[in-house]
Amino acid sequence: MEENLLKVRGFQFSGLHVGIKENPNRFDLAIIYSEVPFQVAGTFTTNKAQAAPVILDLKKIKKGVGQAVILNSGNANACTGRLGMKNAQEMVEETARQLKVSPDLVYVSSTGKIGVQMPMEKVKAGIEKAVSLLNADGALNAAQAILTTDKFQKIHSITDRIGKTEYTLLGFAKGAGMIEPAMKGPSSGPPHATMLGFFMTDLHIPAKLLQAMLNRVTEATFNRITVDGDVSTNDTALLMANGKAGNKPLKAGSKEAKAFEKNLEEVARYLSLKMVEDGEGATKVVEVFVKGAKNDTEARRIAYSVGRSPLVKTSFFGQDPNWGRLLAAIGYSGATFDPYKVDIYYDSVKVAASGVATTKEADRAAHEVMKAPTFKVTLDLKKGKGSFRLWTSDLTIDYVKLNAEYRT
Amino acid sequence: MEENLLKVRGFQFSGLHVGIKENPNRFDLAIIYSEVPFQVAGTFTTNKAQAAPVILDLKKIKKGVGQAVILNSGNANACTGRLGMKNAQEMVEETARQLKVSPDLVYVSSTGKIGVQMPMEKVKAGIEKAVSLLNADGALNAAQAILTTDKFQKIHSITDRIGKTEYTLLGFAKGAGMIEPAMKGPSSGPPHATMLGFFMTDLHIPAKLLQAMLNRVTEATFNRITVDGDVSTNDTALLMANGKAGNKPLKAGSKEAKAFEKNLEEVARYLSLKMVEDGEGATKVVEVFVKGAKNDTEARRIAYSVGRSPLVKTSFFGQDPNWGRLLAAIGYSGATFDPYKVDIYYDSVKVAASGVATTKEADRAAHEVMKAPTFKVTLDLKKGKGSFRLWTSDLTIDYVKLNAEYRT
Repeated sequence: MEENLLKVRGFQFSGLHVGIKENPNRFDLAIIYSEVPFQVAGTFTTNKAQAAPVILDLKKIKKGVGQAVILNSGNANACTGRLGMKNAQEMVEETARQLKVSPDLVYVSSTGKIGVQMPMEKVKAGIEKAVSLLNADGALNAAQAILTTDKFQKIHSITDRIGKTEYTLLGFAKGAGMIEPAMKGPSSGPPHATMLGFFMTDLHIPAKLLQAMLNRVTEATFNRITVDGDVSTNDTALLMANGKAGNKPLKAGSKEAKAFEKNLEEVARYLSLKMVEDGEGATKVVEVFVKGAKNDTEARRIAYSVGRSPLVKTSFFGQDPNWGRLLAAIGYSGATFDPYKVDIYYDSVKVAASGVATTKEADRAAHEVMKAPTFKVTLDLKKGKGSFRLWTSDLTIDYVKLNAEYRT
Repeated sequence: MEENLLKVRGFQFSGLHVGIKENPNRFDLAIIYSEVPFQVAGTFTTNKAQAAPVILDLKKIKKGVGQAVILNSGNANACTGRLGMKNAQEMVEETARQLKVSPDLVYVSSTGKIGVQMPMEKVKAGIEKAVSLLNADGALNAAQAILTTDKFQKIHSITDRIGKTEYTLLGFAKGAGMIEPAMKGPSSGPPHATMLGFFMTDLHIPAKLLQAMLNRVTEATFNRITVDGDVSTNDTALLMANGKAGNKPLKAGSKEAKAFEKNLEEVARYLSLKMVEDGEGATKVVEVFVKGAKNDTEARRIAYSVGRSPLVKTSFFGQDPNWGRLLAAIGYSGATFDPYKVDIYYDSVKVAASGVATTKEADRAAHEVMKAPTFKVTLDLKKGKGSFRLWTSDLTIDYVKLNAEYRT
């Protein structure tokens, strides 16, 4: 990746270790800052036990304007009550004071341990230092500072043109566990992670249009992945546009807006699949493609039933084409279907035709398919026109090890 | 357990190895036979991909009469199409022929691998041998023959009196994986495992009353456990009453009927908890008790959301009182509640009060509680009067190992 791709005009970033995490080699605080205010849209977890930062951001996002985001890992500030709300607000105020902007323009996002209060002295001292480190080349540091159980950074950018105006879209994200994003926008819109995702562009795009785009893209990307089926208290995606490219404001429905949205979806899908690839303990990224369902809603229900099933996910880990488990998961999804019409494929290998095993050769071929780090399972119900795609990981020994030892 | 407790007047049992399983030391076929026809009730999986034996039994159970059950492990005869249906019917007919009873009086139940055809030659030869081995003391052999990944037998009986009539109720069951029973009766009634459960009594109880009792008891016991959240294609519970005790037929609503139902519930609960204890890879049996919910339906939804969560279940394995994961699972259950009203206990240790951590001492005390093989988690929502109890296991390294290697 070329270094210049990780810059966006007018944006500055920093990331560092301030002591929220014990390991001094791991960053835990970051700031995203724009030299001028940006238009902003957000999608947030639909979990009813929303973390304090989510509650604060939801109040602000309706105005559609901001200038900075204060981020931390190591502590989710979730299940922390009134003190948690006060601490989230203090993070915002301290950042605003150091940046000399209004607190109304500062967003906050946290990820990490649940039910533990934020170490505010370390955080406040850290904010001052983070502000002093802000620079246009700091995106990698910021992306590093939001990681928790992630094994690698997730960052991607696209440079493109609108007319003669060259612009950049940069996104970075984290997410490895407690992943089944079900996010929606501030008032309505589609909904499903702890995932955090941040998108920065130098285009001028009005907040309302940004929100509509982010709703659609969230639904098509982040809300289509599952690692463990646990919807987080902290999932947040923010899309910021500071207008530094100097274009005329994009209009809803225009071909320019559509072209940008396509790029946004590409970056968001890249980051989503990287989250599944980095799913806690995961060794496989599996696309579950349901087709021929009664309708899209039923296709979705089937995809989640299959994509969440521990028996299905352990069979992926074992590289065992145990398609009976897939059919059983369809069976308890609540969807209407005829088990003796279902065809099942691993990539192009048909292991079940009309609900019954095909051949032993197919079984062996499917086992070969499953040795790859990514493959696709197709479930054709041959009933209607409904379809849905979901990306899931396998359930592994390392997943259990990681999560049985998280706090101790 | 006294040997005589495992007998029921008029019932004969056998269990043996016929070659459905490869290991010659593991039984895989059993017969339950009554010298006279019995009244019978059944509850069956609500999974839409019902196995062939379930489809057959559902047709018969409406008549409420039977005289024998042919059982096997090692092959579930699920996802096996028309040939599977034909094979299940042939198992019934061969058993009927050997026993010299009508095929209408013979039930069939299978558990084991999905998507593989039954080895009918071995099964037919086995049936002949099983019939020759039938005897009043064979219950342990039959109970042995239905085990799959189970580590131990599950069998329990009660001897009691109705007036001057002494009677016995004997139950045995299997179940270790693909466990989240959602069973219901033949037409309506409450519904959720591959679990198989068989109850035999020498009382005279009419089929209609038997069915009403079994519906209620299934809902209160088998339908309240989860190991992996996967609802099986084969779950079956059968309750047989052959009248050999010589009592007058029990009447619905009578104190005698209530007393029997209480005993039935006790045996079914014993077997249910043994299934969780023997859950694949499980090291813990955890009671999830939800109270103060808006209503019982919401309490149930919360209990399943918590009891199925991989993050919650790995925290049980790790003996880590990570109650934030519990609160997050409540949050995405879809139930209405205020996160800042929720109290959380491990046994009597209150780790969260009104959604916020209590003390570090409580955390340590809860960790001690979790070292025991069984403990109780109480979630008090302080909203309404709804409550629900669910029994779940932990998610362990051995669960993944077992299920990643089942077929290979």
